[in-house]
Amino acid sequence: MPDVPSGNAIVAQSGGPSAVINQSLVGVVDGLRGHRSIGTIYGARHGVRGMVKGDVVDLGAVDPQRLELVAATPSSALGSTRDKPDRAYCENIFATLKKLHVRYFFYIGGNDSSDTCRIVSELAGASGYDLRCFHVPKTVDNDLVMNDHTPGYPSAARYVATMFMGDNLDNRALPGIKINVVMGRHAGFLTAAAALMRLREDDGPHLVYLPERIFDVDRFVGDVERCMSRLGRCQIAVSEGIVDKDKQPIGATLIRTGQVDAHGNVQLSGSGALGDQLAELLKQKLTPAGGKPPRVRADTLGYAQRCWPDPSPVDSREAREAGRAAARAALAGELSGSVAVQRLRQEPYESGMKLVKLADVAAKTRHMPEEFMKGENNVSEAFLDYLRPLVGPMPSIGWL
Amino acid sequence: MPDVPSGNAIVAQSGGPSAVINQSLVGVVDGLRGHRSIGTIYGARHGVRGMVKGDVVDLGAVDPQRLELVAATPSSALGSTRDKPDRAYCENIFATLKKLHVRYFFYIGGNDSSDTCRIVSELAGASGYDLRCFHVPKTVDNDLVMNDHTPGYPSAARYVATMFMGDNLDNRALPGIKINVVMGRHAGFLTAAAALMRLREDDGPHLVYLPERIFDVDRFVGDVERCMSRLGRCQIAVSEGIVDKDKQPIGATLIRTGQVDAHGNVQLSGSGALGDQLAELLKQKLTPAGGKPPRVRADTLGYAQRCWPDPSPVDSREAREAGRAAARAALAGELSGSVAVQRLRQEPYESGMKLVKLADVAAKTRHMPEEFMKGENNVSEAFLDYLRPLVGPMPSIGWL
Repeated sequence: MPDVPSGNAIVAQSGGPSAVINQSLVGVVDGLRGHRSIGTIYGARHGVRGMVKGDVVDLGAVDPQRLELVAATPSSALGSTRDKPDRAYCENIFATLKKLHVRYFFYIGGNDSSDTCRIVSELAGASGYDLRCFHVPKTVDNDLVMNDHTPGYPSAARYVATMFMGDNLDNRALPGIKINVVMGRHAGFLTAAAALMRLREDDGPHLVYLPERIFDVDRFVGDVERCMSRLGRCQIAVSEGIVDKDKQPIGATLIRTGQVDAHGNVQLSGSGALGDQLAELLKQKLTPAGGKPPRVRADTLGYAQRCWPDPSPVDSREAREAGRAAARAALAGELSGSVAVQRLRQEPYESGMKLVKLADVAAKTRHMPEEFMKGENNVSEAFLDYLRPLVGPMPSIGWL
Repeated sequence: MPDVPSGNAIVAQSGGPSAVINQSLVGVVDGLRGHRSIGTIYGARHGVRGMVKGDVVDLGAVDPQRLELVAATPSSALGSTRDKPDRAYCENIFATLKKLHVRYFFYIGGNDSSDTCRIVSELAGASGYDLRCFHVPKTVDNDLVMNDHTPGYPSAARYVATMFMGDNLDNRALPGIKINVVMGRHAGFLTAAAALMRLREDDGPHLVYLPERIFDVDRFVGDVERCMSRLGRCQIAVSEGIVDKDKQPIGATLIRTGQVDAHGNVQLSGSGALGDQLAELLKQKLTPAGGKPPRVRADTLGYAQRCWPDPSPVDSREAREAGRAAARAALAGELSGSVAVQRLRQEPYESGMKLVKLADVAAKTRHMPEEFMKGENNVSEAFLDYLRPLVGPMPSIGWL
């Protein structure tokens, strides 16, 4: 008989939303509901913040049909937070959990959230409170270690690949230089997804710049110039996290070296500034003597990447299963852990979940492996093979 | 018997792409193919540019199945142009058309394209060349007069409404101030579409700023402040074309009055600058004495608005029918005209096409009528009733 103390459970969501984070929430409820050791299944509003305040809802009381609708809805239905608890914060969490007779804590989020889970778990142990803590993975950045990929990423990748596909057709129709800035401060997986729907040899993105590579401004200008000579157009995917050889963000470097003008208080990330700065740079450098500057436009993809309500079906299924797996682990008597997505088979694609140690995932960042990159400005076939089964059916296109 | 001279036809696409502009292209081919007066159906690459150079493809020779795939593909399959021909340019067009024995010219585009159609038609008449010129409407801005709405707009509106729907859920999960800048330099129809999916009383967008209204910076700050006091969050839809009382773009005004810092050569529109400037303004004005600035983020929606490959089914159907209607008009002996979309019935929705004079559409701009707006920062129920039947099925969502 597994050691499964009777008590209540609490589920919470953390960090940036994704299109499928509610699937994981409903997966946890699915997995716990009706089990004899589990009493009430609470949902805490706005992550650990709601756990401190006791701001909870009874998820077990929600009509299952409504819960299905919630599962299919993007963004964290319970609300989210970016709070990261320290010891004092944790003491307040325990006070609430004790009051609510909670023995099981499920936290859905990225690597910060798995670290929160680890801290809460350790402090509970140290204070003699039997609290079982489970982390359910979620991040559009795909930067959790121990996972083949992370729930949330396939849907974000689907959005990015679809956007680049349409934008490439736009760039064909009205040729010019087009820069698209993609999310992912430290890992290039989402930017790399831009390349998924290259169907013809001259389809964009023609250049892909990842945070795992050093971004050299002069080489960038040369890359674009060569692409323009060859095709008369150039579609570019740029990670918001590109850095120079000293690991400094490119926007800061361009301003410091006087290559573009500073823009007051505008933040370098989380705004359109990087795209606009790169566009300005290209206009300056690629204007022929006495000629007109080239047509350069920049889009920064924004929050639609993480909350577009057309998730990948594979992602929806896996996110649900990740939540269920966490519940199963708890009911099997595990004391803590992080669910990790494993690829079991490539063709036909099949995945499974396993439980790993919180400390093995917590606060670590995964990067694009070398074999997923090609040269300084492209992705490899290995990466495209990795991504293809995850995103779901994509639109078919025709050309003249 | 209608006067329908025997000859070839040419079709071309112009201006910014849309998700359904190829439906209109295929509609023209549908309508002409097999008619005894029509020989070859040419497609000109890159609009009038291909007509000058004789850069054409034989559309009648394209396999119908492939043509269907083209129809469902966003962005102009023949390529586009922003060239606007003068008399000399037109003489070069006529030279090609005469060489190709073309008697029928179909131009798919916005109000600039209908004006091009008018100029070509008039100059052909003046030079004694029997050329029948037809304009097929297309613009995501929805700013063509004589039309209930314009093919391309419903799909762009579908994208904008979907984006705001997901982004509102994101803003609920992690509350703050979120600005989203929407296309439409002179007409607010696309920005107004942001409001379509407000389902709960406190759903965003909470504020909608259209180019048809004077944008007052101080009132804007007050609007946002009141919204934050009431809800603790604020999602804002802003047209890229908002102007102050002197019709000056707001970005220029903010810089001139020293309210934000100038950003070198960055263009005021077609970049992330406006959103970033408004975000900077709100951070400055809404930071409490001695406190932290509020969380403000800005997204500028970009080209995905016009080339996202998930068009509205109504839009796809109407764009096809607009192309067919132009072909029918030609085969009925009409000398020239612009196809205009008419709403025949609201419930169940039904539309039809009629032919209007080129001069009635050419180079005119339609704006949001007064009854579609509510106060200074909102849209009316009448507008939402107008838009609802056009966008196709939207995602269902659930909440806790």
